[in-house]
Order: sequence, then C-alpha cells, then structure tokens
Amino acid sequence: VKVEIVAIGTELLLGQIVDTNSSWIGAELAAAGLNSHFQTKVGDNPARMKESLELALSRSDAVICCGGLGPTQDDLTRPVIAEVMGVELELRDDLAGKIRSMFTSRGRDMPENNLVQAMVPAGASPIAQQPGTAPGLVCPVNYNGAQRVIYAVPGVPYEMKEMVTGTVIPDLRARSGDTSVIASRVIRTWGQSESGLAEILADRIEALDAVGNPTLAFLASGVEGLKVRITAKAADHAGVNAILDAEQAELEPLIGRWTFGYDDDNMETVVVRALKEKGLTLAVAESLTGGYLSGRICQVAGVSEIYRGGIVAYNPQIKHGLLEVPDGPVITEQAAAAMAEGACRLLGADVGIGTTGVAGPDDAEGKPVGTVCMAVSLPVGEGDEVERFTKTATIRLPGDRERIRQFSTITVLDMLRRLL
Amino acid sequence: VKVEIVAIGTELLLGQIVDTNSSWIGAELAAAGLNSHFQTKVGDNPARMKESLELALSRSDAVICCGGLGPTQDDLTRPVIAEVMGVELELRDDLAGKIRSMFTSRGRDMPENNLVQAMVPAGASPIAQQPGTAPGLVCPVNYNGAQRVIYAVPGVPYEMKEMVTGTVIPDLRARSGDTSVIASRVIRTWGQSESGLAEILADRIEALDAVGNPTLAFLASGVEGLKVRITAKAADHAGVNAILDAEQAELEPLIGRWTFGYDDDNMETVVVRALKEKGLTLAVAESLTGGYLSGRICQVAGVSEIYRGGIVAYNPQIKHGLLEVPDGPVITEQAAAAMAEGACRLLGADVGIGTTGVAGPDDAEGKPVGTVCMAVSLPVGEGDEVERFTKTATIRLPGDRERIRQFSTITVLDMLRRLL
Repeated sequence: VKVEIVAIGTELLLGQIVDTNSSWIGAELAAAGLNSHFQTKVGDNPARMKESLELALSRSDAVICCGGLGPTQDDLTRPVIAEVMGVELELRDDLAGKIRSMFTSRGRDMPENNLVQAMVPAGASPIAQQPGTAPGLVCPVNYNGAQRVIYAVPGVPYEMKEMVTGTVIPDLRARSGDTSVIASRVIRTWGQSESGLAEILADRIEALDAVGNPTLAFLASGVEGLKVRITAKAADHAGVNAILDAEQAELEPLIGRWTFGYDDDNMETVVVRALKEKGLTLAVAESLTGGYLSGRICQVAGVSEIYRGGIVAYNPQIKHGLLEVPDGPVITEQAAAAMAEGACRLLGADVGIGTTGVAGPDDAEGKPVGTVCMAVSLPVGEGDEVERFTKTATIRLPGDRERIRQFSTITVLDMLRRLL
Repeated sequence: VKVEIVAIGTELLLGQIVDTNSSWIGAELAAAGLNSHFQTKVGDNPARMKESLELALSRSDAVICCGGLGPTQDDLTRPVIAEVMGVELELRDDLAGKIRSMFTSRGRDMPENNLVQAMVPAGASPIAQQPGTAPGLVCPVNYNGAQRVIYAVPGVPYEMKEMVTGTVIPDLRARSGDTSVIASRVIRTWGQSESGLAEILADRIEALDAVGNPTLAFLASGVEGLKVRITAKAADHAGVNAILDAEQAELEPLIGRWTFGYDDDNMETVVVRALKEKGLTLAVAESLTGGYLSGRICQVAGVSEIYRGGIVAYNPQIKHGLLEVPDGPVITEQAAAAMAEGACRLLGADVGIGTTGVAGPDDAEGKPVGTVCMAVSLPVGEGDEVERFTKTATIRLPGDRERIRQFSTITVLDMLRRLL
C-alpha cells in the first residue's frame, strides 16, 4: 500500500507554521512498514486542494489529508473531498450532537458555525477518536475504477496523532493485507554528542543495512537527547520482540553508559520512578531554570506521591533568606548545594535539587553566559547510619537563554538518576 | 511570478528530519511578495524527483529545489535537473578548484567523490554565495516553449539561507519586475475562541478579499493564543506602514478587547513590561501549573529586575504550612487567594499570583480534571491609601494534563495584565 500525505493550510506555505504533522505521520508510516513517496503542502484554495488530492490518488492507494477541518471559512477540506468523491455533504446528527455537547460540558454555547464540522461527504465514516470538535473522516473514493481512500484528520497535532494512531495506521495495515508485525523500540540516551554517537554506531548500522531487518534509525531530539530507534518485522509479536531484545542486547555494550530509558520514558519519568521505588520524596530549589525544572517533574502523572514542591529563588535575597544560602556570590557549587539542602529542609523532602547559573543575555558575577552550577542532596546509608550526601557540579552550556535552561534541567535530572 | 518549492530527501519523508527549509523559504517568498502555491517533499529517487520537478515546472514559473547536492550516491539533484533540462553534466574547473581549495584551507585532502559537486548541467550557472562545498545552481529550463528556471540549493540550512537571500529572492524579484514593498503586522489575542474570532472578523476579511490589499490571515496558535496577521503592499516603507496602521485601527473596535500585544510580544513579555512601567515586583505560588508559570515568566530577558521568585506548593502541606493557606480543601478560590498573598509575603513582592486546580489524570477533592482556581493579588490606590486587592476566578479547561497547565498559565497572566 502506497500512502501519500497532503497537508492543507496557507499558513504552512507562508512558513507561519512548520509542517511537523507530515514528518510525524511519515515516521509512523515508516514504522508500520507503509511506503510514502510524496508529501505535499497546499494552501486553503479549493481548486489547488482538489488538484493535489487527485494527483495523490492517481499515484498512491491512500491519502492522508491533514488540516482544514475547522469551523471557519478557510476550512475547505470537507467540501473539497466531497467534490473529489463526487458526492454531496450531509449533516450528521450524531456528530452535531457530539460537538454541541463538547461546548455544553465546558459551560459554553456552541457558535452556529461549528455545525459545519458535522457536514460530512456522503459515504464517509467518522473516525472513532475525536479529542476536539473536528471529526476525522475515512472517505472511500472510486478513482478511475480503483478503490482508494482519503483519511481526513485535523491539523491540531494532538487531535491528529490520536486519530492516526487509533484508526488510520491500523486501517492501512488491514488494507495492505500485511499480517506481519512491525514494532519499534526507542533507546533514549543523554550525555553523548550526535557525531560521537553516530561514529560509535556507524559499523552496526552498516551491518544491519545489509540485512534489512531490524533497522536502526538515529534521531537527534534536542533537549530530549539522542534517540536510537530499532525497528523489526516478524510473523508475530513474539518474533518481533525477540529481534528487538537481541538488538538491544547488541547495542548495550556500545551505548549503555548513556542510556537512561526506553520508548515512552523520558528523563523525568525515569527519575520519578526511581524515587518511588526507593520511597524518597523530592523538592527543588532553582534559579536560572526559573521553574522549568519543577515544571518538567510535574509533567509526570502521579508525581504528587513523591513530589513535595519547589522554590524558584530568582532574586538572590530569596536564596540568602528563605534558603539560607551563605552570603556572597550565588553562582557557585556551594550555593547550589545550600539550595538543594534548603529545599529539603523547607519543603520536608528526602532528596533536593539546586540549580544556579547564568542564563543570559548578560554575564553575571564575572561568570559567562551558560555557566550552570548544580547540586543533588540525598540520604545515603541505612538505619542509624543515614547521612546526607550532596554532590555538586559545574557545566558550561552553549546556546540561548531557553536552551541553557532546558539543557541544565535535563543534565541535573540525569545527575540525580545516576546517584539513585 | 509563481514559485514552487521541491524539498529532496528520503529522511524528510521518514520524518527523521522536519522540513523547516521549505517553511523558511515560504516565509521569505511571502515577505518578498512572491506567490507560492505548492511545496512538495520527495525522496532520493531519480524517477520521482524528475516527476516532481516536471509537475512543478508545469504549473509554476520557477522552482526552488532544496537538497541532494552533496557528494554521496544519494545526492541526485544535479543529474536529475540535467535530465529535465535535456542536457549533459559537465565538469566546471572553476567550481572544482573552489571545492579543492576549501579542503586545502582546512588542512585536509579533498576526497575524490567531492568532485561530483563540480559536475553541473550544461547551461546552468553557479550561485555566487557558496558557504559550503555544494555549489548552488541557477538552471534555465525551456518547458514546452516557456522560459522557466530551477534554483538548486543545498539542504544544509545555513548554506541554503545564504543562497536564497543572496541570489534566489533578488533574481525572482527581478524576473517579476516588482519593486513594491511588502510587510506584515501580527495582532496577538487571548480569550476568544477560534470560531468566535472568525465570526467577528468574517465581514472584514471578505471586504478585504475583494480589494486584495491589505490581507488578513488568521492563525490559531494553541497556548500562544490566536494571531491576526495584516499583510500590506505599497510602493515604499512609509506607504506600507500607513496601510498597516489604518487596518490595525479598523480592527481595534472589533478585537481590541482580546488584544494583548503585537508582533514579537507574548503574554509574559507584555505582563513583565507593564510591571516594570509601574515599578511593581512579582512573585508566584503555583500548584497544578507546577513551575510552568514561573518558567514562562523567566523566559523574558531582563525579568530579574521585577521577578522575585516562586513557590511550587505541590503537596497540600506546603500550601497550609509555608503559604498559610487555611485548613480545608485546597482547590478553591480562597486557597488561590491565600497562595497569591502568601507568595507576596514570603518572597517580598508587590504582586502575587496563585494557581491551584486539577491537572489530572484523576479528579481531586470532588472537582473534575480541568478545574482551575486562580488569584492575582496587587496593591491598589496611592500614598497612604494603598490597599491590597485580590481577585479570584475559577475556570474549567479541556484537554490533557499538559494543555491544562499551559492554558491556565496564560489565562492567569492575562488576568494580571487586565488588572494592570
């Protein structure tokens, strides 16, 4: 089955929004073993939308059409698909009711123009997943006698993703008649450079390329670290898992020292899991990270079990007063240590993290932008022998204000992870 | 002049790299008043590359072909363009010398395969800018008797940008014979739904569409709110600014009550600017937002002048203890108010913000996921008459944990902005 992606929206052509949707869908298709040869962006223009959809239908078996399902005059995907299908739009009462009840549950009246979202090409069926007001659609098309299909999904990423994962990919796999199982495993790493990791893995990637199964892909993901993705194909789930396990074991001696997790793990879920396992509570005291560190930790569902809270000590007076950092400069490992210990004391936590540094734009205390001092304080030993141990480090990060805050957050969480 | 972008690279289709190049070029074309109706991504496959280029030539006057100019076997743009032009590749000694000297100047020998980068379709001319080893090319094409042009630029962003800015855009502007100036202004709004704003602006957009200058574009940008972009064209900069000013004044009565800023403003820069103007310092106490609120505020460069810091009171004990929230339930407006006032007291700030609520995944205190109580506490009056005023509100937000945290952050910042 050949699949093509058509992304709709003048804002995409104008570069006001980067089309990350097509890239995400492309990766999902590849992971599912589905071929995709073209991706097109076209503006909110009915004639050109129609031209793009018909071209896609002429050379692919299925088209994923992303965007243009909103309630405004610019949202033309529904009528254009109806034209391509050669059918009329009809009001689906079930969808209209669903949209209306979404507004009602938020205590708001539905603007009447939202009703157009329930106007669906005759013969199309709604996608079961519908996290927003826009229904997704599966639209069968007879193209010169060949049975083809257009999937219409919204441009809002979280809505699109739920529909593609929940309906589009399984439906495409079923159509392809391919009953083999494809699965991926992502190895998450932190602390090695992109070119470094590429060099370490070059031989292995070349060896696998010659065989074709499994395959390795290598994804630089900024503050999320570097991801190594293993994709395998086999007759059944057990077979795929055996290949994935074997390849993971093969890679372990090469990249294990930078591996912090797998698949949906990220640095904060791994740290929170480790803290829960050890029955330790956490508190943070942050300066240059400004709340970002605490915010990352609170992204983990169920974190309230171990997370006490945090102090954003942005002004030095807060550091010296509330957190009892000794008088003097505050961009030092000593200050970071006092902050980590102060967070434990003030918020009643077992483990404390402290960050202080220079996010820019200007140097501070004679330290250049990008200087970050960090500390982790935690109890070591058992029973009567428990003592508090505080580890500190100083790093120097490149990049702008935002990047420095993000990278120092992940770096200090990785420091805590290694200590646990 | 109609311009089309064709981005080359299997890694783009597989989503291993997001195609930010096309978005960037699209924005540059729009800013230069050049129309672009289609953008296509295609893999490193000569037949499909040729198909994409010929399709683009059939419906546009010029094609910017991005990527595939490297020295490896995957780099097929040069031979494919030669085929489309119906000419041979020829070795350009000047380019070969330039590439060789680039290696020499870095103290390295040139690998022989880099020589293919000097193989150029007969009749093409190199682009003057060449920051890397890949020469860019201007390739005139006779397409069914019409004079068209393909610009070949590398996929490496900084190399591509230098060539597009330095040669491609000026060349296209010269071909179009257009000497007018184009500029945009973005109006940032918060608090009105997408469909609501679309309804309010529908008549104005229709009226402007009939004239064609200026134009209005409407961008839903998630937690960044809804953006309204005015784009105008005139003979000179003064003329463009006059049109932008007039249109902004026209829109003010329609959307002014939701407008919080313009162009590069965002909610936190606007709030920080207002606090600086009034000489007020700020502190926050947050629960469900978990540090995200403080993190957003700290994204503003120079915020240390007014920002004292924050307390992330994730555990209820921290709310009752450190922040002196009265005993009892903590997902109430009273608790939010006590948190805002506690932040002012504890961190020595004039203005305090408090947030508490249910980010999910589970309900809490009998309140459903998405319930958010917020408070802003600030001094009102002058001289001896200064009193503390605390405003509270409760909202109910849709979406997942992350979205609830983001939207409540911007909503409470907007509440503060309106009070200032």
